Amino acid sequence: MILVGERINTGFKDIKQAVMDKDPKPLQEWARKQTEAGASYLDVNLGAVSGDPADMCWMIETVQAAVDTPISIDTNKPKILAEAIKACKGKVLVNSTTAAEEKMNAMLPIVAEHGASFIGLAMDESGTPKTTDKRVENCGIIVAKAMELGIPPENIFLDPIAMPLKFMQEQQPQILDAVKQFTLFSDPPPHIVCGLSNVSNGTTHKKLLNRTFLVMAIANGMDAAICDVMDSDLVNAVRAAELFMNREIYADAFAR
Amino acid sequence: MILVGERINTGFKDIKQAVMDKDPKPLQEWARKQTEAGASYLDVNLGAVSGDPADMCWMIETVQAAVDTPISIDTNKPKILAEAIKACKGKVLVNSTTAAEEKMNAMLPIVAEHGASFIGLAMDESGTPKTTDKRVENCGIIVAKAMELGIPPENIFLDPIAMPLKFMQEQQPQILDAVKQFTLFSDPPPHIVCGLSNVSNGTTHKKLLNRTFLVMAIANGMDAAICDVMDSDLVNAVRAAELFMNREIYADAFAR
Repeated sequence: MILVGERINTGFKDIKQAVMDKDPKPLQEWARKQTEAGASYLDVNLGAVSGDPADMCWMIETVQAAVDTPISIDTNKPKILAEAIKACKGKVLVNSTTAAEEKMNAMLPIVAEHGASFIGLAMDESGTPKTTDKRVENCGIIVAKAMELGIPPENIFLDPIAMPLKFMQEQQPQILDAVKQFTLFSDPPPHIVCGLSNVSNGTTHKKLLNRTFLVMAIANGMDAAICDVMDSDLVNAVRAAELFMNREIYADAFAR
Repeated sequence: MILVGERINTGFKDIKQAVMDKDPKPLQEWARKQTEAGASYLDVNLGAVSGDPADMCWMIETVQAAVDTPISIDTNKPKILAEAIKACKGKVLVNSTTAAEEKMNAMLPIVAEHGASFIGLAMDESGTPKTTDKRVENCGIIVAKAMELGIPPENIFLDPIAMPLKFMQEQQPQILDAVKQFTLFSDPPPHIVCGLSNVSNGTTHKKLLNRTFLVMAIANGMDAAICDVMDSDLVNAVRAAELFMNREIYADAFAR
């Protein structure tokens, strides 16, 4: 399972303040903690704090001064991506493009040029679809475009777009079904990922809902998630699910 | 979700002793506790303690003197079933037959005559299959036989036969895949059930493994389980999973 640590994001107050103050400590602490917890990538998100690529580069360099964990560049702005990707050492995950032609044309050539991986969201210029079919159609467009640019399936992460259970319950089976269908795009299939915390927006029992959704999505073929890697109940549930998918070999000490 | 309480079984020492002593108390206590915990059925299993149908009837009558919860008659002996089913008030679940012709011919006419539901195990006289295909084939034979006898799909519970993760890990994806395929037998599909505790035999972290497997099986279409209904983490995980399947409407108080 590929777990992307969600925490280095200016949506969190401590990170926002640190970026404004150019204080490396909070970013480096979260970089170390998430790495120790087993993160495969660290998502880095500048958010609305600044539109200056130099600020995103500062965040990435600050993280990389503390750990070797690969970076997930969380931006939908090609101008920021173009600079940020040059600041990254080692492999990179670009988070994200949609299926909108203009967005793909701006983002994916940069991904291809750097041999990076990327997340393709199952949405287009008209927004997030309500149905399985439209989600699959959008991701089909993304896969085709990636192939055209020579990006191999193992560098493609498709995202069905997890929606809040509380407000969009009727879409949940469609989202899980889309995951299953994404596995049919290629053999071996592309990676399948989601931004997990969205699922439990506005609910009680957030952690229970997050880990239950993720286990169900794994049963359908998901193999990656942007999530709270510090949530040990979540990580243990993921490990158990991977045993039943026969992706990892059972050992009595599989959970911690 | 249909949860069948597993606890009134002579495999547990307190129940074994109670049956030998004809002491109603332990059976009635477990009947009440499992009912309060939300059991849809109470499984009653005489095991190897006795081959006398009268002892099974005593167990059932003892349980029914305490609660109104429907009984799941856990026997593979037609002679015991024929008497036990007459002792049951209200609806009954017969647990179980296999796809073996002789077994079906002995058990299913009794099921049909009493308008009961039954569990059909995905095995035949040659034992438990290793593959998805053979599991589906066996359950197809059971469904056909049930139809022939006029047993409607809503009275059929198909069981893929959950196997211990620790000893048969490579079969786990096949078992989950069989669940998915069982949903295609009819529309609406038959019920799909398993004996859950088997999954975690010999492991550490039994509860984590049981609930993770069940959530994955629900994602594939399972809607019933014979399990420890007193395990509140399990029941909460089941409730969360049912929300994502859009089978129950979200409420902030969905878990307890």
